[in-house]
Amino acid sequence: MAQNIYDNPDFFAGYSQLSRQVHGLDGAPEWPAIRAVLPALAGKRAADLGCGFGWASRWMREQGATSVLGLDLSQNMIARANADTSDPAIEYRIADLETLELSAAAYDLVYSALAFHYVEDFQRLACMIYRALGSGGDLVFTIEHPIFMAAAHPHWIVDEDGRKTWPVNGYSVEGERRTDWFARGVLKYHRTLGTTLNTLIGAGFELRRVEEFAPTREQIEQLPELAEELERPMMLLVSARKTETR
Amino acid sequence: MAQNIYDNPDFFAGYSQLSRQVHGLDGAPEWPAIRAVLPALAGKRAADLGCGFGWASRWMREQGATSVLGLDLSQNMIARANADTSDPAIEYRIADLETLELSAAAYDLVYSALAFHYVEDFQRLACMIYRALGSGGDLVFTIEHPIFMAAAHPHWIVDEDGRKTWPVNGYSVEGERRTDWFARGVLKYHRTLGTTLNTLIGAGFELRRVEEFAPTREQIEQLPELAEELERPMMLLVSARKTETR
Repeated sequence: MAQNIYDNPDFFAGYSQLSRQVHGLDGAPEWPAIRAVLPALAGKRAADLGCGFGWASRWMREQGATSVLGLDLSQNMIARANADTSDPAIEYRIADLETLELSAAAYDLVYSALAFHYVEDFQRLACMIYRALGSGGDLVFTIEHPIFMAAAHPHWIVDEDGRKTWPVNGYSVEGERRTDWFARGVLKYHRTLGTTLNTLIGAGFELRRVEEFAPTREQIEQLPELAEELERPMMLLVSARKTETR
Repeated sequence: MAQNIYDNPDFFAGYSQLSRQVHGLDGAPEWPAIRAVLPALAGKRAADLGCGFGWASRWMREQGATSVLGLDLSQNMIARANADTSDPAIEYRIADLETLELSAAAYDLVYSALAFHYVEDFQRLACMIYRALGSGGDLVFTIEHPIFMAAAHPHWIVDEDGRKTWPVNGYSVEGERRTDWFARGVLKYHRTLGTTLNTLIGAGFELRRVEEFAPTREQIEQLPELAEELERPMMLLVSARKTETR
């Protein structure tokens, strides 16, 4: 079972104060980039893996999805998500992405934001999602970027010019990474970018878009501290499709 | 026109002493990984963009390619490549990848090793290669990895534990990078991994494999200094196909 850090009280208290939790999708600087690669939602059956408070699940319904299944490991998250909607077409459930099984060909879109890097067995997950999508269905997800995750001590340093610099080591050594983020020893799984993409290709997906989130000039003008995100990518965004022809 | 550093005498003298130039393909630790993604060569019409001394061009002929066109910007390289073969099915020519035009549907495989990061306009090149491939044709290439290229000062540092660490900054700021490598001010073009992959997808290619070269345990046993390559990827290897169905 994946580590359930989100039900750790200290973690949850800190996490709940993040801009993206207080302000929802508009509090996440990568949201415009995600939105740009999401397919039209009207008439779609969607699943939201690692739905958290349900911001994206509700947004997908607003965009015309006929049903949304929101899944999260955290009881805290699911309780809050349930409290925030009375829409009968949104169903929230507690689930572990390490063992989750979705019905075959039951979804047109599987969406996941910043959850898959907590999953150890990405190959199992990718193959399960492929089966759960109908023909032409889309998988759109973000994860922490492997450049961000790889190092033993992932924090800003400065180079000889005093420029903010991110350290990379152990990049090709995949597996557990433990960091302190609102709680000690948060467990994540580092995979190279090649492994993530080749796992999707191997599962049958066609890669449609690979983005390494960087803020736009307008975003940096509004929130100058985002400028450091130009120095190294924090997030990877992938859009993949179960194509008709395979 | 691309910078022609390879005809700089100092550069050429140093470069010619590299293991991969003295020992050919077997002197390049990434060669087994490249070979694993190359399609069967028998009966194929191949082009080798940035062919250098022609090691790969000759190998492709040995593997059964019916013809190989080897192109390089460097007169030194082409002269040496021509001197090393009398095979009439291999043609070497001086060419600039910034402006090269190949005949439409004239190749089954376009191969390139560590050349495209010298090219400023990768989109033009990718679209040109797509047109030059027949249906089902493959593009297989390596470039310097953007993690390796991004920083203003790309050299090893150590982290607080004394571990070899690679600095990343300016990752999302694409464009010129100048480094000193056998000569001062060698000009390369940094692109994010996302840009490289999305340019290929946009040109019509299906991504088949994305590898970030890391040495195997056996390679490290034979050549212990390769171990540092586990800390950060120096090379990106991409296999893409002009699929029949588009």
